[in-house]
Amino acid sequence: MMRFMHPLDEAIDLRAFAQPNAPHEFTGKTHPAYANMVGPFGGTTTAQLLQAAMLHPERLGDPVALTVNFAAPVADGEIRFLARPARTNRSTQHWIIEAHQAEDVVATATAVFAVRRATWSDVEAKMPSAEPGPEALARMPVKGMPAWPQCYDMRFIEGAFPTAFDEQEQNHSRSCLWVRDEPERPMDFASLAAMSDSFFPRIYIRRRRRVPIGTVTLTTYFHADSALLAQVGKRHVLGVAKALNYRNGYFDQTGELWSPEGQLLASTHQLVYFKD
Amino acid sequence: MMRFMHPLDEAIDLRAFAQPNAPHEFTGKTHPAYANMVGPFGGTTTAQLLQAAMLHPERLGDPVALTVNFAAPVADGEIRFLARPARTNRSTQHWIIEAHQAEDVVATATAVFAVRRATWSDVEAKMPSAEPGPEALARMPVKGMPAWPQCYDMRFIEGAFPTAFDEQEQNHSRSCLWVRDEPERPMDFASLAAMSDSFFPRIYIRRRRRVPIGTVTLTTYFHADSALLAQVGKRHVLGVAKALNYRNGYFDQTGELWSPEGQLLASTHQLVYFKD
Repeated sequence: MMRFMHPLDEAIDLRAFAQPNAPHEFTGKTHPAYANMVGPFGGTTTAQLLQAAMLHPERLGDPVALTVNFAAPVADGEIRFLARPARTNRSTQHWIIEAHQAEDVVATATAVFAVRRATWSDVEAKMPSAEPGPEALARMPVKGMPAWPQCYDMRFIEGAFPTAFDEQEQNHSRSCLWVRDEPERPMDFASLAAMSDSFFPRIYIRRRRRVPIGTVTLTTYFHADSALLAQVGKRHVLGVAKALNYRNGYFDQTGELWSPEGQLLASTHQLVYFKD
Repeated sequence: MMRFMHPLDEAIDLRAFAQPNAPHEFTGKTHPAYANMVGPFGGTTTAQLLQAAMLHPERLGDPVALTVNFAAPVADGEIRFLARPARTNRSTQHWIIEAHQAEDVVATATAVFAVRRATWSDVEAKMPSAEPGPEALARMPVKGMPAWPQCYDMRFIEGAFPTAFDEQEQNHSRSCLWVRDEPERPMDFASLAAMSDSFFPRIYIRRRRRVPIGTVTLTTYFHADSALLAQVGKRHVLGVAKALNYRNGYFDQTGELWSPEGQLLASTHQLVYFKD
């Protein structure tokens, strides 16, 4: 009898490349469930880059920060990941990670891992209104969309993906939504890393205009530790996203992912290329 | 007659290491004007890492994003910088940069450079109130502080550095201030990169309590291009900073730097280790 494996777990199921002279190398491949219009969803590539460090035998603690730079389009197929612990301290570890296809670098990343200790803690940011709850909202229709949004259950409170690209410019690009993996999957660092890239390009919300875009760099801070992620489990989390600035080919977007109980799980920032 | 050289220009005056097998190597050193309590101000190290890519003969365009990971304390003295263009496309370029002392990595960085094209542009974020202006405010007293704050002229509208660490916990950690290099210096990418790390640790503002802290990673998006920076010139810019979350040894802080005319020059995010 075959056991069900979640597509995200299949996507991050990297294999250590056992060659003695390449001890930091892992191989993986793009997953059809996370295909975008061209190539894979960047969130999945992000989760794979993080996983290369997670699987590394010298890994210390849990991720607290991850920056991914999308250097070139990723082609469907095999990807080689090179994870190198650049510096290991007593309670922190710094990583440089690269993704290669054929002879070329397609993505670079840095990550900080840490062993956390209990300290004074406080959420200073204001959680956005969590009403209505996910059970009172309909799932965003995903028919006709690329594969990857079908792997998320998104329920918008505000700032949904436009139903029509009618070029009616909006005053802002804020979105607020409940989101979880589809099918359901217990939250961990891989899903949190991928979900941080699941906010649609802010320029689509703001301009309701289809323009070519591509994320060039993405940074996520993991405020949650494993224990907090385990509390979230398979439930929806509350996501909020906005843009600060659009200027001459680049805009930023910033996001937060909140537990239903009001803990900030991750804050995330990206810079996006656009043509308009 | 000796011409005055600004301490920041001295600090980023890196020398290409002319050895034929090390074409991407530059040497620099810590600058006493930017000393912190222990070692150098992270903003200066950030500017040096960026400068290693700026000075590289293969550099394309201007920086749009920079992430610096502070892997270990930087000792006073010489630093070797290794800048490598990991991928060069038609209009973007991705960098991996490392800082070494003795045999060890003390910082890693990635940067994205780009040739920008004119597009539809808009500032979506709300500029904080710019009143009163810098001429109506007193400069923050820097007597008794480490060297680096003496290299900035900071004039606080809100959320000043606490005059006493009286452990009176505040409701929030927001700051708003006018800031420029001291002595005056025309704004460029180096000063903008350094200034992005000039916001004092949010936990000091929030808790009014001295605790050991250290930035582990810093990401800055350069929304401004060279032309916009030239317009700013030597004037003060408006800075605003806040924290979102403090949890078990790490907090984040997020900042914005605005031109007096209301253009967003940079947005910046960092994750900071603390013990409390």
